[in-house]
Amino acid sequence: MSYFKEINKIQYEGAGSKNPLSYKYYNPEEVINGKTMEEILRFSVAYWHTFNADGTDQFGVGTAIRPWNHLTGIDLAKARVEAAFEFFEKLNVPFFCFHDVDIAPEGSTLKETYQNLDIIVAMIKEYMSTSKTKLLWNTANMFTNPRYVHGAATSNHADVFAYSAAKVKKGLEVGKELGAKNYVFWGGREGYETLLNTNMKLEQDNLARFFHMAVDYAKEIGFDVPFLIEPKPKEPTKHQYDFDVATGLAFLQKYDLTDHFKFNIEANHATLAGHTFEHELHVARINNMLGSVDANQGDVLLGWDTDEFPTDLYSTTLAMYEILKNDGLGSGGLNFDAKVRRGSFEVEDLFHAHIAGMDSFAIGLKVANKLLEDKVLENFIEQRYSSYTEGIGLEIVEGKTDFKKLEEYALQLNEIKNQSGRQERLKMLVNQYILEALV
Amino acid sequence: MSYFKEINKIQYEGAGSKNPLSYKYYNPEEVINGKTMEEILRFSVAYWHTFNADGTDQFGVGTAIRPWNHLTGIDLAKARVEAAFEFFEKLNVPFFCFHDVDIAPEGSTLKETYQNLDIIVAMIKEYMSTSKTKLLWNTANMFTNPRYVHGAATSNHADVFAYSAAKVKKGLEVGKELGAKNYVFWGGREGYETLLNTNMKLEQDNLARFFHMAVDYAKEIGFDVPFLIEPKPKEPTKHQYDFDVATGLAFLQKYDLTDHFKFNIEANHATLAGHTFEHELHVARINNMLGSVDANQGDVLLGWDTDEFPTDLYSTTLAMYEILKNDGLGSGGLNFDAKVRRGSFEVEDLFHAHIAGMDSFAIGLKVANKLLEDKVLENFIEQRYSSYTEGIGLEIVEGKTDFKKLEEYALQLNEIKNQSGRQERLKMLVNQYILEALV
Amino acid sequence: MSYFKEINKIQYEGAGSKNPLSYKYYNPEEVINGKTMEEILRFSVAYWHTFNADGTDQFGVGTAIRPWNHLTGIDLAKARVEAAFEFFEKLNVPFFCFHDVDIAPEGSTLKETYQNLDIIVAMIKEYMSTSKTKLLWNTANMFTNPRYVHGAATSNHADVFAYSAAKVKKGLEVGKELGAKNYVFWGGREGYETLLNTNMKLEQDNLARFFHMAVDYAKEIGFDVPFLIEPKPKEPTKHQYDFDVATGLAFLQKYDLTDHFKFNIEANHATLAGHTFEHELHVARINNMLGSVDANQGDVLLGWDTDEFPTDLYSTTLAMYEILKNDGLGSGGLNFDAKVRRGSFEVEDLFHAHIAGMDSFAIGLKVANKLLEDKVLENFIEQRYSSYTEGIGLEIVEGKTDFKKLEEYALQLNEIKNQSGRQERLKMLVNQYILEALV
Amino acid sequence: MSYFKEINKIQYEGAGSKNPLSYKYYNPEEVINGKTMEEILRFSVAYWHTFNADGTDQFGVGTAIRPWNHLTGIDLAKARVEAAFEFFEKLNVPFFCFHDVDIAPEGSTLKETYQNLDIIVAMIKEYMSTSKTKLLWNTANMFTNPRYVHGAATSNHADVFAYSAAKVKKGLEVGKELGAKNYVFWGGREGYETLLNTNMKLEQDNLARFFHMAVDYAKEIGFDVPFLIEPKPKEPTKHQYDFDVATGLAFLQKYDLTDHFKFNIEANHATLAGHTFEHELHVARINNMLGSVDANQGDVLLGWDTDEFPTDLYSTTLAMYEILKNDGLGSGGLNFDAKVRRGSFEVEDLFHAHIAGMDSFAIGLKVANKLLEDKVLENFIEQRYSSYTEGIGLEIVEGKTDFKKLEEYALQLNEIKNQSGRQERLKMLVNQYILEALV
Repeated sequence: MSYFKEINKIQYEGAGSKNPLSYKYYNPEEVINGKTMEEILRFSVAYWHTFNADGTDQFGVGTAIRPWNHLTGIDLAKARVEAAFEFFEKLNVPFFCFHDVDIAPEGSTLKETYQNLDIIVAMIKEYMSTSKTKLLWNTANMFTNPRYVHGAATSNHADVFAYSAAKVKKGLEVGKELGAKNYVFWGGREGYETLLNTNMKLEQDNLARFFHMAVDYAKEIGFDVPFLIEPKPKEPTKHQYDFDVATGLAFLQKYDLTDHFKFNIEANHATLAGHTFEHELHVARINNMLGSVDANQGDVLLGWDTDEFPTDLYSTTLAMYEILKNDGLGSGGLNFDAKVRRGSFEVEDLFHAHIAGMDSFAIGLKVANKLLEDKVLENFIEQRYSSYTEGIGLEIVEGKTDFKKLEEYALQLNEIKNQSGRQERLKMLVNQYILEALV
Repeated sequence: MSYFKEINKIQYEGAGSKNPLSYKYYNPEEVINGKTMEEILRFSVAYWHTFNADGTDQFGVGTAIRPWNHLTGIDLAKARVEAAFEFFEKLNVPFFCFHDVDIAPEGSTLKETYQNLDIIVAMIKEYMSTSKTKLLWNTANMFTNPRYVHGAATSNHADVFAYSAAKVKKGLEVGKELGAKNYVFWGGREGYETLLNTNMKLEQDNLARFFHMAVDYAKEIGFDVPFLIEPKPKEPTKHQYDFDVATGLAFLQKYDLTDHFKFNIEANHATLAGHTFEHELHVARINNMLGSVDANQGDVLLGWDTDEFPTDLYSTTLAMYEILKNDGLGSGGLNFDAKVRRGSFEVEDLFHAHIAGMDSFAIGLKVANKLLEDKVLENFIEQRYSSYTEGIGLEIVEGKTDFKKLEEYALQLNEIKNQSGRQERLKMLVNQYILEALV
Repeated sequence: MSYFKEINKIQYEGAGSKNPLSYKYYNPEEVINGKTMEEILRFSVAYWHTFNADGTDQFGVGTAIRPWNHLTGIDLAKARVEAAFEFFEKLNVPFFCFHDVDIAPEGSTLKETYQNLDIIVAMIKEYMSTSKTKLLWNTANMFTNPRYVHGAATSNHADVFAYSAAKVKKGLEVGKELGAKNYVFWGGREGYETLLNTNMKLEQDNLARFFHMAVDYAKEIGFDVPFLIEPKPKEPTKHQYDFDVATGLAFLQKYDLTDHFKFNIEANHATLAGHTFEHELHVARINNMLGSVDANQGDVLLGWDTDEFPTDLYSTTLAMYEILKNDGLGSGGLNFDAKVRRGSFEVEDLFHAHIAGMDSFAIGLKVANKLLEDKVLENFIEQRYSSYTEGIGLEIVEGKTDFKKLEEYALQLNEIKNQSGRQERLKMLVNQYILEALV
Repeated sequence: MSYFKEINKIQYEGAGSKNPLSYKYYNPEEVINGKTMEEILRFSVAYWHTFNADGTDQFGVGTAIRPWNHLTGIDLAKARVEAAFEFFEKLNVPFFCFHDVDIAPEGSTLKETYQNLDIIVAMIKEYMSTSKTKLLWNTANMFTNPRYVHGAATSNHADVFAYSAAKVKKGLEVGKELGAKNYVFWGGREGYETLLNTNMKLEQDNLARFFHMAVDYAKEIGFDVPFLIEPKPKEPTKHQYDFDVATGLAFLQKYDLTDHFKFNIEANHATLAGHTFEHELHVARINNMLGSVDANQGDVLLGWDTDEFPTDLYSTTLAMYEILKNDGLGSGGLNFDAKVRRGSFEVEDLFHAHIAGMDSFAIGLKVANKLLEDKVLENFIEQRYSSYTEGIGLEIVEGKTDFKKLEEYALQLNEIKNQSGRQERLKMLVNQYILEALV
């Protein structure tokens, strides 16, 4: 059967096309610097937002009209798999991602949950055998069930820790089974609601123990993929331990975990932490920790995770700039951790939204690539820091000086002449590159 | 001469006193757990806010009426020293802090700046010889002068790096000369305005080089005190590298500087970074990095550093709770990095404001101490995490288990029973302890 | 049967009581200025948070353990009524509030919904006949059902407008039937998600039409109570038309509705709009529009409506200050629009939370009353503005001058001497009054 | 003499031009819908940011290198006038704006201040006689001098009120003398720092009295131009009375001032108040109160007024959309209330920044105009609300129905079918129009 029979396969029709259900800028086969757009962008559909979410918000029940709405239980789970692979094909997308509970219902016991998972994983494997769409990453949902009310690996209750360990163990096995390219940890409940009842030290020590056991088990089963931590500062939890990339880095360094982990960076989480998306990508990049991306956008005038589909061309351009500087995302990809608005409740909106996101990143890629080709920013920056390539600057960088020599040098300086940072000019240059992307 | 002749020495008169110029809760001699309040709280006056600041804001010029307003240059600098020691004595405060430019005017050359500094440092040393008030810390102002427009140790201009090195070298010498208990680094311009023109990697590498040279030079001259980094996320700079404690920790770990640095934590900087004051103190504490405190408060409905005198008793209580759990501040103290409002422009307001801050922390100390004595939170937390003291929990903590054993354990679990976190009850208990502090 | 059999009636036991399930500060019979605490504070339980909410958040399902969890449909509705009146009695609270859907399930048709409502309203009326607890206000939930996805009275679909009209018509009848003291409008979906698809002018005109029809119908049935608008800036909607009190006032003035409406002010909505709670109360008060209060508190470091039980004594003190200056709340009250945390999932937490809120407001009342008795702020303010009671100031206030006379006056002025605003001193005075509330 | 001799007159060179000192999108003579770009956009240079500001921030002194830096007093004022008109000509801009203190130094008495003003106003008038550049608006600075520490028209001190009246009286005379098109009020100190010392009612009553006197005096001297209130929520003051457009509207309605005032809307003030720029423009527009625009942009991750030059094409597009829907700005214009960054301290940056702003608004105009021509949003909206053009919807809009009839109607409704709001699609359409602006 078809779940989206009114929708044809989305094709690239180019700028100017008036067909709303076509790509205007994303052309998977277009080659940029020796790679196709598809290879560079590595788009991924987020199972939960597209096949599970129904538009519920804190003040309203679901609005989404979906062809599987009448089903329940394992039947619903199967219908979603069928719909998903039809969707992937129509969208022509190379990857998808899921949490365990997205694909299969929890049972009344862990064993039953495993059984449900096994059924659906087998079915997905079967579908994957004839689909181009691969699994970018999977993860374990350790935040929805009441048992995680006080955390999973950082719960105050050791049984919850054990239960979570079992979930991740199974998740690693599932990832291996389905050929996942990465494994993700998002610690939505790993944090605290109030310091008044919290032993942060023990919780963080336990989290590190948990990660080490995960590393050991993945090694044991030969599931050799990057582990990705997804930073988020808050929501649902008042304070989450993986606040941002820098905080995650401090944690990984402290607990000797940097060899096994990278970051999965989400735009909306960055802004909730007070950073731009490109800042978080940049910090991860210069620390060799950029793993993958949850491609969405927030509403900076709202204080929660709106998970909107990414359409801001500044954001997609500057994100792609970091990704190109990183030589791409390696085994990572651009996963649309984004949901259609509650008011966009029709199936067609799922397509409009993904097209919007993919087209926006395609433009971002083109603009970023052109900026790099023309070395617009690179040349400016190189010149700006040129004082460190000779004389006292070079001595500083090479570690050949000290405070006494520097003082001597400083004492004979005349007034230091700085040069303008040219922010306004640089911002307008970015505008020009966007405006002239198609010209 | 007297600068504050209308003000008598501030005395402890106790709760209920109607004299506005008296301590009602801060009694320096009162003993709490074997130490006097003065020894525990280690209050410090911030030279810049109290003797230099004039109420200027971004939309208005100075309003402060000060007895030294008619003076300029080195005469002004000397008058401020005289006024400062009179102020310290009347306030009966054990410490003060300064930036180099607070105490002596910059000259037209670095050499002249040194000469000005030498004059005033000698004068301060003389005053200190007969005063109880010690130097908690000093620091170099590397943000006001236009030369730091693009940073100091992270400037794109190597000459600025060199100049900054000279400033800190001199600062370390001054600190040693005056017996400073710590040396502070606040990187107000160490960050970026826009990523479009920034080489963040080089800037951070240089910052680390700068700190290593500082460590080496302090060792060389035998100035053996803690170095303190003061995190702040933004303002004046768009993004500051020392965003918060966790970010600072990541930096210090990466560049192998953890042995030499601790944190100077400011309440208003914490809230600008999206954290509570007590969160930042807690994170520093459990990483053995709590050095000193800039005691102030922000206005959480405003988005900039208001540097208000601390009067929020929740904040002072929870801060003192962390400090007592840390066995005090060691060589650190509670420095009032706080300014009277622009509308509080009379000399009397300087006294009202410091009294407000000191009384508020004195109450905070009493309430926190009582909470700890009664183990109100401690017992709750101990019980809450008790599952890690036996059985599977103990095995987790002792590293005696793995994912396979944990899965086995999880598979035979019945429904996990969590217990309530009791946040509402705990918050009201804190209220009770505050309300009954004096009873 | 008893739903809370393990809980006895909450009694006033006074400060120092160690019984966690007692009032320590709220004594309903204590007389303050000729009225009892109960008469002044007019506490109300919010049906939805206490009997319907289950701890669901955007990332997790319900956690609440409630004795009615096994029931559904009309049986569940009836059990909640029984539990509610037991709860009211044990808490000894004079009021409660509800939305229509809180008390009775929606049917598959509007007619069926009415029938369900009629059954439960009759039951509530019966319970009220023997209970001291009255209905502070009721309202219609026009935000949960998918039909309100684009608004209720501001929907782009006229049928939704009509449906909403029917709901409010029924609500007014129910309010009259149960003797409600007020009728409330909260427009959670009255606003827009994006201007790109919105006709704001038509939507606001329609909202005004809706309110006028409500006024007319209430008059027709003789339901003569204040109508209350509850401002909120955002959440769930991106922008809500009743952003804050000032915005609501502009709307009511423009559409000639000021005679029929006042405001129901919620603390957490105030902070989401960038205001303090007391600011919103103050603005309503000086415009004679302070109707009632949704007593809760937000977390200013989080960007969404946390609806926490109010425990901040600064907030309760300054709120009670405004309420006392308003000569009380008239037909309004202090309704706990507050929910226990998701981690506080036991029935006992419902009691702890209400006790915390009631005790905190009781202290707020005592402190505010003492501040007013001693005219601590009143005298300061009176003196501060005294220049408007004579000379040129009096002429200004009495409208007896103009720009030419004022210029003449200004031209002969010497330097104008302002006086300090004394913010630090005033803040510490509030501290003193809180700390000495019990002494 | 020439102040900017290294800069030639900025010419339109079109997209693709590599000359950094040229317009690429702003072509003053290009006709759009029968008007030239110059006539529609009505760009204005802000005197204070461009000729007075020096890059000072709260943590650093000025950095700006300006050819008049060596001058002081009235000589400096004259040099700035000369430079300004050279700048206007090189930029080819039709308007400018100033505060009184921007153009002439304050004297030691009001009389002397008047005399300084008279000298410079005469000089400006002389320059204007041969320049195309007109005065968009002027205003009185009532926030920098310490006398306004507690407000101007809302000061607690009647002498300050009188002094402010004299300043505005003079301002109105200057505006008339120079042919200003509007007169602006920005109440940077009209608000409160703390409610603890504030009589808000008296302050707001006085502000209304002040405005009425201003209206009367303008009438008396025949200065018949719109008065513009410029809303801002905070900064420098904790809470400003003109918080946003809606708040300003409530004030103007309450005090019967709507006939004489419109709004001057600033992008960065909008975001500080929690609104988008286009929201504020829209609210003003549908209330017939859109007067003029302060064209800049903020940094939504920073909590203060950064006054950046506008380069965000989404913002300029949506702003121009509102302006075109308003049939233009009437006597208002687009004033660059924007400052170069502290790190952009060279004269060249002043040109880069204005070019960036003008080019960005030119593109915004083109895109908005094309969106309107194609009725992209208009048609969608018209269809979306079509239910109000017939049947029950028409009856609602025409006031021909009531709650009883609506209930009857609702009772016979089947399930209401809403249609998708299509937010994702609409956002991508805006992207397409931007990307194809030049194609």
